Amino acid sequence: MAIGAKKWVIPEGYIPPGSMEGADRTLISHETACILNAGKRDAHLTITIYFADRDPVGPYRITVPAKRTSHVRFNDLDDPKPVPAGTDYASVIESDEPIVVQHSRLDSRAPEIALMTTMAWSAG
Amino acid sequence: MAIGAKKWVIPEGYIPPGSMEGADRTLISHETACILNAGKRDAHLTITIYFADRDPVGPYRITVPAKRTSHVRFNDLDDPKPVPAGTDYASVIESDEPIVVQHSRLDSRAPEIALMTTMAWSAG
Amino acid sequence: MAIGAKKWVIPEGYIPPGSMEGADRTLISHETACILNAGKRDAHLTITIYFADRDPVGPYRITVPAKRTSHVRFNDLDDPKPVPAGTDYASVIESDEPIVVQHSRLDSRAPEIALMTTMAWSAG
Amino acid sequence: MAIGAKKWVIPEGYIPPGSMEGADRTLISHETACILNAGKRDAHLTITIYFADRDPVGPYRITVPAKRTSHVRFNDLDDPKPVPAGTDYASVIESDEPIVVQHSRLDSRAPEIALMTTMAWSAG
Repeated sequence: MAIGAKKWVIPEGYIPPGSMEGADRTLISHETACILNAGKRDAHLTITIYFADRDPVGPYRITVPAKRTSHVRFNDLDDPKPVPAGTDYASVIESDEPIVVQHSRLDSRAPEIALMTTMAWSAG
Repeated sequence: MAIGAKKWVIPEGYIPPGSMEGADRTLISHETACILNAGKRDAHLTITIYFADRDPVGPYRITVPAKRTSHVRFNDLDDPKPVPAGTDYASVIESDEPIVVQHSRLDSRAPEIALMTTMAWSAG
Repeated sequence: MAIGAKKWVIPEGYIPPGSMEGADRTLISHETACILNAGKRDAHLTITIYFADRDPVGPYRITVPAKRTSHVRFNDLDDPKPVPAGTDYASVIESDEPIVVQHSRLDSRAPEIALMTTMAWSAG
Repeated sequence: MAIGAKKWVIPEGYIPPGSMEGADRTLISHETACILNAGKRDAHLTITIYFADRDPVGPYRITVPAKRTSHVRFNDLDDPKPVPAGTDYASVIESDEPIVVQHSRLDSRAPEIALMTTMAWSAG
């Protein structure tokens, strides 16, 4: 039961530069690509990050095992290099197996968190 | 007037582990699949929950009557077993009748709530 | 330049029952269907509201003039009868001209507002 | 690798009239169209703004260079004239190259921010 598409786009990217005092991992400001691979084969993904004023960076490589979900934080990507905080970016996610991708952000610069989410755009 | 699709995907799932003090049911942290069955026949749904590090769990069975909406809280699912809080998951919703599904979360870990929503991804 | 579709669905509906003290109209808790009619002819819409436990109510009738946007608050609908606050509902919006519909909510039960939005689901 | 569509619609538009005290540019209330041009050629965009009670205004002209993202704040548009704050509007974005567009808002009228986002609606 493979479900989804092999190319996804998230034009909005921004890791808030800062978090509330004492935030644990769940409350640190972060931006996430939530990926579901409902199929029977592992999905091998590449993520390319686009910027406003410099060349794209990537590919970042991620494997989402068969019948698993992976909520990938852009904060955690570091190879070929970290995604900078406080900087506008966009991302394109390509997979060798069908997947579904949802984008969300938790912003805890203030003591109260703000959330947002949207389905990514499937490009085929 | 049956409207919608028979398979829907929500890659982002996370029930916030905790709520503001004194929260009643409307303000307890929750995650919801809002489902509309605008058709003339009851819709019989199965929900499968996917995790990062273990096998999928399900099916959870829900009936949405003809010409009714049902805002299903993942917090309330308990058969075959409860959906754990504080844990990344994803869901696939399948129906024998066309439906439309929207995902939303209310996070009240802090005294002020945060909200997010998106249409689920229709897979056919 | 008519753009869009003639039938739209918003499965998530809930008017928060209450608002922060001293809220003016812009900060009162509300739920909105933002509608764009980019075409040359006025669009005549009917909205049907679906509930969890009773028959649908409608049609509510709205006209969005040619080349205009209308941000319709569900709070303001009152004919055939008001949409109750604190109650789960869903809506189907039908138009005789192509339109585009986006759903959003402002929740100001707490002194700080929470926002959420999503594109409605286009059903043809 | 051009990805996307050439026409996009955002029915919800509203620049919150005010911001928290001492907000820097990142925390000033704003509304953004996040645009990705993943292709090899610069994309030339026109934005048209629609209102509830007056004729549309535009075109606003934007160039998003090849392989770049541009997070365009409606607050910053000023030619042919500024987009008024505290006013309902909607927008249509047209491009000569395929792009992907995501809408987001940061509302900092209160000391705590609220966020919302959605993919824009692709119209071809």
